[in-house]
Amino acid sequence: MNHPGRVTLVGAGPGDPDLLTVRAVRRLAEADLVLYDALSSPEARTLAPEARWFFVGKRAGSHSMAQDTINRLMIREALRGRHVVRLKSGDPFVLGRGGEEALALVAAGIAFEVVPGVSSAIAAPGLAGIPVTHRGLSTGFVVVSGHAESAYAALLDGLAPKSATVVVLMGVGARRAIVDRLLARGWAANTPSALLAGTATPGAWQWTGPLHQLPDVAFPEPAAPSAGYGIMPRSPGILIIGDVVQLAHALQQPTVATASAL
Amino acid sequence: MNHPGRVTLVGAGPGDPDLLTVRAVRRLAEADLVLYDALSSPEARTLAPEARWFFVGKRAGSHSMAQDTINRLMIREALRGRHVVRLKSGDPFVLGRGGEEALALVAAGIAFEVVPGVSSAIAAPGLAGIPVTHRGLSTGFVVVSGHAESAYAALLDGLAPKSATVVVLMGVGARRAIVDRLLARGWAANTPSALLAGTATPGAWQWTGPLHQLPDVAFPEPAAPSAGYGIMPRSPGILIIGDVVQLAHALQQPTVATASAL
Repeated sequence: MNHPGRVTLVGAGPGDPDLLTVRAVRRLAEADLVLYDALSSPEARTLAPEARWFFVGKRAGSHSMAQDTINRLMIREALRGRHVVRLKSGDPFVLGRGGEEALALVAAGIAFEVVPGVSSAIAAPGLAGIPVTHRGLSTGFVVVSGHAESAYAALLDGLAPKSATVVVLMGVGARRAIVDRLLARGWAANTPSALLAGTATPGAWQWTGPLHQLPDVAFPEPAAPSAGYGIMPRSPGILIIGDVVQLAHALQQPTVATASAL
Repeated sequence: MNHPGRVTLVGAGPGDPDLLTVRAVRRLAEADLVLYDALSSPEARTLAPEARWFFVGKRAGSHSMAQDTINRLMIREALRGRHVVRLKSGDPFVLGRGGEEALALVAAGIAFEVVPGVSSAIAAPGLAGIPVTHRGLSTGFVVVSGHAESAYAALLDGLAPKSATVVVLMGVGARRAIVDRLLARGWAANTPSALLAGTATPGAWQWTGPLHQLPDVAFPEPAAPSAGYGIMPRSPGILIIGDVVQLAHALQQPTVATASAL
């Protein structure tokens, strides 16, 4: 190979390859190896047909590859002169360990580049007809992981009712705990809320309704892998809480299956 | 024209046309008329060379076109059968009045589509080497407008120190008021902080330093229009406050001019 090895951390956006950036498409076309997470559509592979594609994400029911292993793999292949694209759902720096991967590359002396992506934190509500900000309803928003109580407790406990739109990524499992916490903080039980899944995939689904009903919404089972998205057809559900959710009816886009209790 | 009129609200990303999505590029290629904001590079125009391009944003030192006027223009042109692309900096639904524009289209019975974009709220810090989340440092982030005190007061007053990364868009003018508010809430005076300008443009600039110094940083004058970006060469500054800013040194990308007091 004529070029020195390098790694590009690429945000893949929320799912549909059309929501990759032009720069992401260019870097994929130059890749020798693509290390990808979930939510990679078959169509995305056509953007780097010559490259090897290697899955390093989490499969339903099993653990993901250890972060150390991913880091070592990136570094090893770059040291062999390859251009490695690390393709990460959404934006590389939103709850995706992109910072850790970049630091590992710096420590190993590997040239790297970050290509920002369309984050599901903003695009998932947007495609569901929910602006995270809207004049008269919200001048800001909060994005937090629902992965563990320690991840959201300090932030949500301070959050005054109506002071921001709340977006919780990986929020399905924690939704009862999160709703209880907001109610305890004084948020109204009828605050408009949404639960979103499969954003920007053929299986997009959304529920809207009052905050107090959110814990009991039946979250849809992931579609079968044969539906076209090979690994994980639905993103782990996203919660949106705030008055902006009331706009979802009016601004509904036609590509999303909906349920509503609003 | 053979198609019925319609409007596409397109997120243009933080500045560089390479950070447009593939879908945005496709919609621009189909446009008859592009209504654009600031931060549109000359290169972006080549994506819709046949379309009329019409500036509807804010020029330095003058007011922007009234929102009602923009809405009427979109509707009138769509009713004439045209495909109008409303090209908005960043993501259409992040502090950009995209929701208002979409509601106006719904009220007028105009078909519309939203194309999410790369938001400067995430990409500006990311391109400056600052992940908005990072394991051990931050599991969430807050995005708020610095445009008026009423926009950020309720949110920031509740925000416990270190509970999230704080991102303030349009934050330059309000930086003293915002810093005072966070210090009063108990945030440490030496909390790592950044001020960013011109993200993803040739004039990208960043300062990093402790929170207490942020109010006194000299914000650079916008580059002359002849620098290539015709209308407003720098985005209105973005503030980033939180421990993740300490990573900026290690994860620095080579395309940004820097100053640091960290």
